Amino acid sequence: MKLFNKVAIIGVGLIGGSLGLGIKKRRLAGEVIGISRHQRTIDSAIKRAAIDRGSLDIKEINAADLVILAAPVNSIIRTGLRLPRLIRPGSLVTDTGSSKDIVVSRLEKVLSNFVGAHPLAGSEKQGVMNADADLFCGSLCVLTPTAKTSKTALTKIRRLWRALGARVVCLSPARHDRLIAYVSHLPHIIACSLIKSVPRNSLYFASSGLRDTTRIAASPAAVWKDILLTNPENVLRALDEFAACLSRIKSAVKKGDARRLEQILEQVKSKREILNHK
Amino acid sequence: MKLFNKVAIIGVGLIGGSLGLGIKKRRLAGEVIGISRHQRTIDSAIKRAAIDRGSLDIKEINAADLVILAAPVNSIIRTGLRLPRLIRPGSLVTDTGSSKDIVVSRLEKVLSNFVGAHPLAGSEKQGVMNADADLFCGSLCVLTPTAKTSKTALTKIRRLWRALGARVVCLSPARHDRLIAYVSHLPHIIACSLIKSVPRNSLYFASSGLRDTTRIAASPAAVWKDILLTNPENVLRALDEFAACLSRIKSAVKKGDARRLEQILEQVKSKREILNHK
Repeated sequence: MKLFNKVAIIGVGLIGGSLGLGIKKRRLAGEVIGISRHQRTIDSAIKRAAIDRGSLDIKEINAADLVILAAPVNSIIRTGLRLPRLIRPGSLVTDTGSSKDIVVSRLEKVLSNFVGAHPLAGSEKQGVMNADADLFCGSLCVLTPTAKTSKTALTKIRRLWRALGARVVCLSPARHDRLIAYVSHLPHIIACSLIKSVPRNSLYFASSGLRDTTRIAASPAAVWKDILLTNPENVLRALDEFAACLSRIKSAVKKGDARRLEQILEQVKSKREILNHK
Repeated sequence: MKLFNKVAIIGVGLIGGSLGLGIKKRRLAGEVIGISRHQRTIDSAIKRAAIDRGSLDIKEINAADLVILAAPVNSIIRTGLRLPRLIRPGSLVTDTGSSKDIVVSRLEKVLSNFVGAHPLAGSEKQGVMNADADLFCGSLCVLTPTAKTSKTALTKIRRLWRALGARVVCLSPARHDRLIAYVSHLPHIIACSLIKSVPRNSLYFASSGLRDTTRIAASPAAVWKDILLTNPENVLRALDEFAACLSRIKSAVKKGDARRLEQILEQVKSKREILNHK
């Protein structure tokens, strides 16, 4: 089912590469063009058949009827602001950034056909060599339309993500950032703090518990620096909430209050079980 | 390779059941007897063939030359203190508790052939129905001998764990508790605090990041209440260390200090990668 003639993906890493593979596998576009700052990345993306052709020159996007910004958040904004002079009239633009309020508010000022998107998929791995045509199958993709968003553009972007296998949910950019701060940005900071606090000489004794709780701390630093710094208020609020919860458990341990501690751990266990039935 | 004539396992849950299955699969004992307070547990353990026979009556351990205490830490201590009147002379006793200092100091006062053990394996699942004959294969098992520990007993218990596929490391009980506080007890509290702090309405948006960071929060509350309350000093010290690391990341987010934040995230990423090469 062809949805677009030419799709240009700016940033052919794990997410951009998986988009290319997924679009090509399902024949959702006539051609997929990859734009990167590094020839090596383009070569890898072509080798993996994630793109049909690639270029270091962003002007190549002029041929595309859909442009996907799949880079760290600050690059999405920087590149997005240059697009009005580069795309042809009527082209759609979307992105894959993990913070939405700042991206959407900046880009919809200059682009009439912009739809913010955040696929809730990925891994701590990076690069097109880890890309997967089915990365988005069964995952959630949040679209963040506003009053300014074109209905036609929204429909087309929704169709793209559904064709890639994702369930699509629409949220306002601000609500997205509030919710995702808790389920993604907060866990990231916690996992990083946790691995930072473990003395090196005890890492030898780590088993699956520490491994799983800190897996996401191996994610690319440049990507996460941008995410956390573009959603600071929500992140700081989530951190305060976390600190309050932690201090309740800590206080039960300090006091040796077995009844209170078991009660908290029981509540936590049944809340965690919701994630198994999602 | 038969190492024991009769092994009695007190507590036939995930760990006790996996021990029974592993011992029977490798023919390490002539007979495996399961002791539980619940007939239902014994029935399940027999059905899974994790034990040859079971009993509600702890006196049955009199036939065993090895008794394994595989219950929550406080039950290990409570039951262990009753053993001198129940076992026959020369029988070995070992345990599987996650806190060692208190267990070993209490039990070696009354048992001449006690060897403390902590297999660093398991999962958030519980019960003999989730037991696995190969749960300990490739995992680490910490033995915690002291000056009082019989060398013969230590050799036999080391042989048992090696036969079950574990790598065996010896640490003093105090050193065990210090190290394990960081790699196991701290991550547990952090995972619990994290899931506790996430608002229910945002759980729908959770993906693999939150799922993995909080998996262990679904572990049995009664087991973990005992573990945390029997190693409070080390747990509280690890929590202080964690708080210091968290506050460094929080401060970089608050100040919008991109360089500092990226530097921390880079350090964290390379430290986390050690766990992939372990």
